Amino acid sequence: MTVGRITLSDRASAGLYEDRSGPEIERVFSAAWGEPVEFLVRVLPDDFLQIESALIELCDECACPLVLTTGGTGPSPRDVTPEATRAVIEKELPGFGETMRMLSFPSVPTAILSRALAGTRGRSLILNLPGNPRSIAQCLPPLIPALHEALRHLREKGHPHPPTEFPLDSKNQTP
Amino acid sequence: MTVGRITLSDRASAGLYEDRSGPEIERVFSAAWGEPVEFLVRVLPDDFLQIESALIELCDECACPLVLTTGGTGPSPRDVTPEATRAVIEKELPGFGETMRMLSFPSVPTAILSRALAGTRGRSLILNLPGNPRSIAQCLPPLIPALHEALRHLREKGHPHPPTEFPLDSKNQTP
Amino acid sequence: MTVGRITLSDRASAGLYEDRSGPEIERVFSAAWGEPVEFLVRVLPDDFLQIESALIELCDECACPLVLTTGGTGPSPRDVTPEATRAVIEKELPGFGETMRMLSFPSVPTAILSRALAGTRGRSLILNLPGNPRSIAQCLPPLIPALHEALRHLREKGHPHPPTEFPLDSKNQTP
Repeated sequence: MTVGRITLSDRASAGLYEDRSGPEIERVFSAAWGEPVEFLVRVLPDDFLQIESALIELCDECACPLVLTTGGTGPSPRDVTPEATRAVIEKELPGFGETMRMLSFPSVPTAILSRALAGTRGRSLILNLPGNPRSIAQCLPPLIPALHEALRHLREKGHPHPPTEFPLDSKNQTP
Repeated sequence: MTVGRITLSDRASAGLYEDRSGPEIERVFSAAWGEPVEFLVRVLPDDFLQIESALIELCDECACPLVLTTGGTGPSPRDVTPEATRAVIEKELPGFGETMRMLSFPSVPTAILSRALAGTRGRSLILNLPGNPRSIAQCLPPLIPALHEALRHLREKGHPHPPTEFPLDSKNQTP
Repeated sequence: MTVGRITLSDRASAGLYEDRSGPEIERVFSAAWGEPVEFLVRVLPDDFLQIESALIELCDECACPLVLTTGGTGPSPRDVTPEATRAVIEKELPGFGETMRMLSFPSVPTAILSRALAGTRGRSLILNLPGNPRSIAQCLPPLIPALHEALRHLREKGHPHPPTEFPLDSKNQTP
């Protein structure tokens, strides 16, 4: 399976900082997924339009069943990963963000600041992961069964791909 | 008390599949509620407009204090129960969906895929329950105290019923 | 640090009822925060426009890094604190409300009815707390580390203040 992964960091994309959370995603996901995985990698600044474009490209053109992001989910003005994710998804899946916050809270009480989202776009699932490399190994493995199930649903149910012009989205639709 | 219950399933509504989660809701709810309950039953396909109409009818015309749905809360394009629910509620109550996902997660890690919502419409409360009959007995009983309290609030506080044309809804209002 | 606190209660603002949750916030927050705190106090009825104005005043004119509200988060039509909060925040932080509901649920199963929100406005953080005085001591202390971290982020990152006319808000923006 080909997984898109996007690291969002002004400093990493400028080469001022090593991208450590992206490689950690590859390590943790490959170990947990149970079948061979290759990654399509993007490292971008915290820029809404660039993130939005990369998500659309990895979902629609590259047809990645899964796109994982890291970084940009905090409360600062530069943190726009959830905004860009919400702009491109059709169905938001609130349980992923809730579960990451809930599982992290006992050991990392500041984890509740994360605004991480997940949602579907056509036959793809997009999941925002934390920007802290140490949090990847804590947050990602418990989500693997739900990711397997979601991807199975998206693969089997004859989803339109790429998505239609007017997705059945609760926020945009005028039924 | 009269409770509306709606089963959302293309196959059950076409008679291709027995509705098992609806009767399970009746069994579990009646055992837990503590006073006599009768049910107004609808079995519908996963169709946005039909679900929306049934929710409005059960809340406004039938004056059910509580409307329980089962099915259609997953990530597939045909799953539109949360979208139809969000379209008719005035105040969303995020704690019900969160709590069902949180309580189910340890034993059913795929439960976090549920997008179940709850919210008020006039003097009625609408609650999306899981589509899996086995999950009803796990998710519904812990919510009974909050349902009792919510219905007491909605009954006592002189709520307009049916709701006004312009509900004080955070998503629609232009204050 | 100066903290804004707003009590939302028709009866307390009319002098028919003693504001007990507001002083409880002062007691619990001061004990937990670890540095001197003074409070700017408002006691208002459950009125959308008055709440909205007070939130804007405390954030933009008084430059409070933190504004705590109590009351008005339930399912009744008069409960509009979350609606007024959502109208003025730029980035919603769902983890605060989730965590309060999750931590309260085992001892107070009706706590899941709370629609409490949190979010940023410029360099300020707004947090809705429960209206029940007894719940303040349960809900607030576990959130202190995340509040410290959030305020540090908002203080350090050169945020525009007061916020711009067109906040980068996922609900309003047309990217």
